[in-house]
Amino acid sequence: MINKKKIINDPVYGFINIPGGLIFDLIEHPYFQRLRRIKQLGMTYLVYPGAVHSRFQHTIGAMHLINMAIEVIRGKGHEITEEEAEAAQIAILLHDIGHGPFSHALESCIIPSLPHEQLSLMFMQQLNSEFNGKLDLAIKIFKNQYHKKFLHQLISGQLDMDRLDYLRRDSFFTGVTEGVVGSERIIKMLQVVDDNLVVEAKGIYSVEKFLVARRLMYWQVYLHKTVVVAELLLVKALERMKYLHQNNIFVTNNPNLDYFLADNQLNNTTEIIRNFNMLDDYDIIYLLKQNINSQDIILSKLAGSILNRKFPKIIINKEKPDENLILEIKKKTKKEYQLNDEDLQYFVYTGEISNNAYSNIDEQINILYGDKLIDIAEASDMLNLSVLSKVVKKYYVCAPKKIINQK
Amino acid sequence: MINKKKIINDPVYGFINIPGGLIFDLIEHPYFQRLRRIKQLGMTYLVYPGAVHSRFQHTIGAMHLINMAIEVIRGKGHEITEEEAEAAQIAILLHDIGHGPFSHALESCIIPSLPHEQLSLMFMQQLNSEFNGKLDLAIKIFKNQYHKKFLHQLISGQLDMDRLDYLRRDSFFTGVTEGVVGSERIIKMLQVVDDNLVVEAKGIYSVEKFLVARRLMYWQVYLHKTVVVAELLLVKALERMKYLHQNNIFVTNNPNLDYFLADNQLNNTTEIIRNFNMLDDYDIIYLLKQNINSQDIILSKLAGSILNRKFPKIIINKEKPDENLILEIKKKTKKEYQLNDEDLQYFVYTGEISNNAYSNIDEQINILYGDKLIDIAEASDMLNLSVLSKVVKKYYVCAPKKIINQK
Amino acid sequence: MINKKKIINDPVYGFINIPGGLIFDLIEHPYFQRLRRIKQLGMTYLVYPGAVHSRFQHTIGAMHLINMAIEVIRGKGHEITEEEAEAAQIAILLHDIGHGPFSHALESCIIPSLPHEQLSLMFMQQLNSEFNGKLDLAIKIFKNQYHKKFLHQLISGQLDMDRLDYLRRDSFFTGVTEGVVGSERIIKMLQVVDDNLVVEAKGIYSVEKFLVARRLMYWQVYLHKTVVVAELLLVKALERMKYLHQNNIFVTNNPNLDYFLADNQLNNTTEIIRNFNMLDDYDIIYLLKQNINSQDIILSKLAGSILNRKFPKIIINKEKPDENLILEIKKKTKKEYQLNDEDLQYFVYTGEISNNAYSNIDEQINILYGDKLIDIAEASDMLNLSVLSKVVKKYYVCAPKKIINQK
Amino acid sequence: MINKKKIINDPVYGFINIPGGLIFDLIEHPYFQRLRRIKQLGMTYLVYPGAVHSRFQHTIGAMHLINMAIEVIRGKGHEITEEEAEAAQIAILLHDIGHGPFSHALESCIIPSLPHEQLSLMFMQQLNSEFNGKLDLAIKIFKNQYHKKFLHQLISGQLDMDRLDYLRRDSFFTGVTEGVVGSERIIKMLQVVDDNLVVEAKGIYSVEKFLVARRLMYWQVYLHKTVVVAELLLVKALERMKYLHQNNIFVTNNPNLDYFLADNQLNNTTEIIRNFNMLDDYDIIYLLKQNINSQDIILSKLAGSILNRKFPKIIINKEKPDENLILEIKKKTKKEYQLNDEDLQYFVYTGEISNNAYSNIDEQINILYGDKLIDIAEASDMLNLSVLSKVVKKYYVCAPKKIINQK
Repeated sequence: MINKKKIINDPVYGFINIPGGLIFDLIEHPYFQRLRRIKQLGMTYLVYPGAVHSRFQHTIGAMHLINMAIEVIRGKGHEITEEEAEAAQIAILLHDIGHGPFSHALESCIIPSLPHEQLSLMFMQQLNSEFNGKLDLAIKIFKNQYHKKFLHQLISGQLDMDRLDYLRRDSFFTGVTEGVVGSERIIKMLQVVDDNLVVEAKGIYSVEKFLVARRLMYWQVYLHKTVVVAELLLVKALERMKYLHQNNIFVTNNPNLDYFLADNQLNNTTEIIRNFNMLDDYDIIYLLKQNINSQDIILSKLAGSILNRKFPKIIINKEKPDENLILEIKKKTKKEYQLNDEDLQYFVYTGEISNNAYSNIDEQINILYGDKLIDIAEASDMLNLSVLSKVVKKYYVCAPKKIINQK
Repeated sequence: MINKKKIINDPVYGFINIPGGLIFDLIEHPYFQRLRRIKQLGMTYLVYPGAVHSRFQHTIGAMHLINMAIEVIRGKGHEITEEEAEAAQIAILLHDIGHGPFSHALESCIIPSLPHEQLSLMFMQQLNSEFNGKLDLAIKIFKNQYHKKFLHQLISGQLDMDRLDYLRRDSFFTGVTEGVVGSERIIKMLQVVDDNLVVEAKGIYSVEKFLVARRLMYWQVYLHKTVVVAELLLVKALERMKYLHQNNIFVTNNPNLDYFLADNQLNNTTEIIRNFNMLDDYDIIYLLKQNINSQDIILSKLAGSILNRKFPKIIINKEKPDENLILEIKKKTKKEYQLNDEDLQYFVYTGEISNNAYSNIDEQINILYGDKLIDIAEASDMLNLSVLSKVVKKYYVCAPKKIINQK
Repeated sequence: MINKKKIINDPVYGFINIPGGLIFDLIEHPYFQRLRRIKQLGMTYLVYPGAVHSRFQHTIGAMHLINMAIEVIRGKGHEITEEEAEAAQIAILLHDIGHGPFSHALESCIIPSLPHEQLSLMFMQQLNSEFNGKLDLAIKIFKNQYHKKFLHQLISGQLDMDRLDYLRRDSFFTGVTEGVVGSERIIKMLQVVDDNLVVEAKGIYSVEKFLVARRLMYWQVYLHKTVVVAELLLVKALERMKYLHQNNIFVTNNPNLDYFLADNQLNNTTEIIRNFNMLDDYDIIYLLKQNINSQDIILSKLAGSILNRKFPKIIINKEKPDENLILEIKKKTKKEYQLNDEDLQYFVYTGEISNNAYSNIDEQINILYGDKLIDIAEASDMLNLSVLSKVVKKYYVCAPKKIINQK
Repeated sequence: MINKKKIINDPVYGFINIPGGLIFDLIEHPYFQRLRRIKQLGMTYLVYPGAVHSRFQHTIGAMHLINMAIEVIRGKGHEITEEEAEAAQIAILLHDIGHGPFSHALESCIIPSLPHEQLSLMFMQQLNSEFNGKLDLAIKIFKNQYHKKFLHQLISGQLDMDRLDYLRRDSFFTGVTEGVVGSERIIKMLQVVDDNLVVEAKGIYSVEKFLVARRLMYWQVYLHKTVVVAELLLVKALERMKYLHQNNIFVTNNPNLDYFLADNQLNNTTEIIRNFNMLDDYDIIYLLKQNINSQDIILSKLAGSILNRKFPKIIINKEKPDENLILEIKKKTKKEYQLNDEDLQYFVYTGEISNNAYSNIDEQINILYGDKLIDIAEASDMLNLSVLSKVVKKYYVCAPKKIINQK
């Protein structure tokens, strides 16, 4: 029999051991290999050229961290069986398997009715039946239905291995070194109390720094204004294609993509999985390239704008933009480009972006002092509780440069 | 007027300053933006998942290094005018602009008659006419027709900024830390003698290490056996498509690609540039995906093999494989898969790969002792001259796992 | 004439260029070379074994950063003449020259009446007369008497190059990677308004992170409880020697050190400089070693405790320790070790340590929005203003392990 | 009972786990704590200011690597019992415990008759009796008397954990990044054949790079000409003190040091250990400082030269220096400084330094091809066998700058 054990070279952590058996087989599965073709950070590479790393790398990295965490927790006297450990690894390995092309960027656009977590679950269930129920426990943990809640919290929570990996990895590949998080140190400080994940007292400064680094990555990278405008353009392009497709003006020659363009209310699980599994970043970019000279002027303009990095102007502010200003911009744009009311939406648009660094509503980061648990927002004397638990909203306006620069 | 000066965040070097003016405009040009969609290391990411970095990043990095080198050389009393400096930057920025999808992997396949250097030159000349002759000096340097030869040697030579960047960058993204080259130290040791680039005596150990690191990267990364087999498969898939296309069995719906599939002897420069400029990694991967269920069994098998990472077996040896063994493998494969003689070439193939770490035929690395120049191969008492200047050849055999594993 | 230009290899920043001329001569001066023998972080290496880096390295690093800052500020259109640039470099190079053995640890003990900043100034004035007034401008900048205030602020202020270097360097050598500060990014964001140093708006997240990293380094490194106890022991040992010396029981055979042991109210500048210049870490450790078997039991015990890393217990709390508890500990210690009241102070002691991450009383970090300046504490919606400007105090109790562990 | 398990923060590897029990107790022992006060690289910090790291850090690092190696070898099916693993850790932890002040620099000077390996063994035996024979196995392994020879080879051999740590650590702290060795990768490639340590075939490039990096570190750091001259001066100063002491002109007030100055033929083990254990870098530097104004002009000059970094000129060449030239230099120096023949030796001296990157006489690095072992010097087609196994000798001449610069 072949020993399937494998080592992967990871620029972030060095060598990562891949266990043989089920986990190896899941990684080899086409569903998982597809993640190699999906960029972790969507269009961010247009601002940070290094940010071309894939979901594949991220999930492998998160699996590596959960292994470290499991070892630490075991070392502190809590039992985690081999089965539980494998299930936790599988759950984190597959937690993003429902991501589509350009990750979050197009999430609400390809299947508006299904967020990626639900899609991930659909994929897991599909794999579970392929692998004869061997993913039962992983799914239970993923759905937070297992009594050792901390296993779920390692996968999805305020301080999960997903975040610890992506913050570090994204800061590595973007070159924004300030986003670096001391994942190793935080993991060493993990503890379990009443089946819940907590952090030992002396880890508080690392947790503070984790929250600040996360916030920095949000405003400096994830919500960088050029990234926001690039992803909005991508959404607009896809919406335009949907419109054209649903009005029988346009087909993509890509049956998998046409399937999603045709209908906003999909519900046939088998069909969804079959088609979705065929989609990745390559379909979208290819489609844009094919339509850079489209007869539909709007689509052609949007495609060119993305591919050649000629973006409209975006203005981001803490205050809602003035209604009259927007009306004036719209009027001028309509006139300048001779647009009708309906088409204007592809050239002038407003909306909001938001980020809350820490939410203590659903889940807290609890710090362990002796045998007392205190919420980080309370334990920290530096961080501003009322601010941290409040969502920070910002408002954007996008419009052609020519129009907005006249102001 | 807008100040176009820009800073790019590079994970390898930190901040890179982009000068305004012509260089900025060239980077913004669609020809150059295309390099964002071409992976520096072709299919290597299937072995080293981090190796998804683009030609765009590499050329920006090489430009950064040439700036450092120019400053060092000026600091040692050699004049380099502003015009020369800009031209050298442009030449290195564009030296890879003729690279097609998957860089070297498909180079000999898409336009067999044109190596990428010649294509780069064609693109430069096209840009030169767009920019009214402002690239004249850059082209002169690129073609090594300028009297200050060291400027050309910084772009293309045994120790050029291209290599210094790619070795460091590739080792960074693959995670093969041993490939790291002390680019900064080597650059500090550069000197110019009689218009030629040389290295000061105390830089000899760094140069030795550069040669060894380069060799290590060749065998550990660039010629890693799984990378080799993945890129061979890609070539086979493209050759199959060419065959089908030229026999009127197959079109891609991609006129730019069809243009190259139709003919192996292209010579209309304008046409070539117009079509080639539209191609990148996305076209190829998309095409494979569209043909994973092709009616042509061979194409479908090749596409699936690449996309789902199910590779045939590859055996690499220093000795030429035994002829009889190959014949036997071919016979068995034919029988097992019921192939005719012609189709066998897509399933069993042999060939050679080679690397010479250092060639002192065309160009040497000269070390400066006092005022005497000595070739590194002679100056170094550790490196083996006769070996270094000899090409290391290895031979490969690829065949279905099932067949080869019977042996 | 000899070209004195020099390059220093720095593990933190790579190559650092040392200009020739006056700066080179100052670095070569015995006053400055002495800094090679003073650890930047005092006794911290007993907790973080890597923290053996010297004041020499730090000041060279700070000079490197001020050069970067000067270049950035010039690039934004503000004039800084060559003379001003050199003076600023000199001022930062010499800002710590008045540090004595173990840096801050013994600062209040060797010359209680003179903080290191004043001593630095004394040294600078001495050097100024040696160098015929060539340090006039540097001293003016150091004393904040120069009209371009930002030059002083680069040396001493909320966001000076001193802090940017030491946070990064200390985190590098301790291995507490979370303390890493994006010095390069902050420097790129510097701007000058009305001769004052400010930070451009998009630098706000980096400044927030700088403040959090600084706080983390305080509690995790600078005020780590084992570091605190080690440095307290060192102070106790020196105080004991002073006591013994002033009571004619003890001399060190080290006239320079005896000079400081003899008197707490020194004021002869020439004498102070002459003797102080001969002191560094080596005198203190040597002295401890010579007294590990001292006839004075107290001194012998303190010396052994430091050298062999057998520390008493330290308890640090946010609340003031209970008076009765202290009394009880003292009583037990006296009895256990048969101490008189006077000697008890060397075995049981209490005190406070404090850190305020940001003080907006004397100096602010101003963020530039358009043409409006806003204090960081106000501009940041995450950081807690009222907390940031408040000093965080903690209380410690030290006592023999044996006694305290009985509780 | 107290859990003594500990984590050490290492800037090179991150967190290092220190096992409790015997190993913990050995680290806490004053013999071992002394290594904190001995610089790993002697006087190298006068050239590379960052090179102030201690023997303490290095041996902890080597212990960390041996743990990794043990785990890898176990994972390949070779049994290593808990006792053997602990013994190997102890052996590497203590392998340098016999190092004296400034490590190698003064090795042949303080106790000419005892190299540090023998002193280390003496210390181990002393510790063994203190710990009731618990170090028996460690000593057996250290002396290469244990049948599992690979355990000894991990501690002392061509590719031992000692070298893997020091090359990486020294390159880290000097900032000579090119010396970085892929320790982790080499360790992953280790294998055991017939109780001997070998390297798997695919590790050959890493081993080549290790040999080249080692050579680079030798010439660029360990044998850097300014380091050589600084260490020669230190030896001269100590020799002068010995001379003065043995002629009753001089005592140090340091009984431990006087013990070694008095006699070159020491043989009382107990005495040697008792006195040697009290010596470290601090004694030597302190002594130099105390003698910077010595009445003995020669000693005063040597001390000042070291402390203030005013070195004589050193010339290093591959050829033996011309006898007549030396004679002339000596003559001029005598005249200029009015020296007698005997004293001349402190001002003009010659000698040789040498390095062989790889010696296949006592021990080889064997590469495993299938089941065949091949010596690296043969297996590698790049490295030059005859050179590698030959010692590279260079010759130096030191003399006052004034004299030598006249030439």
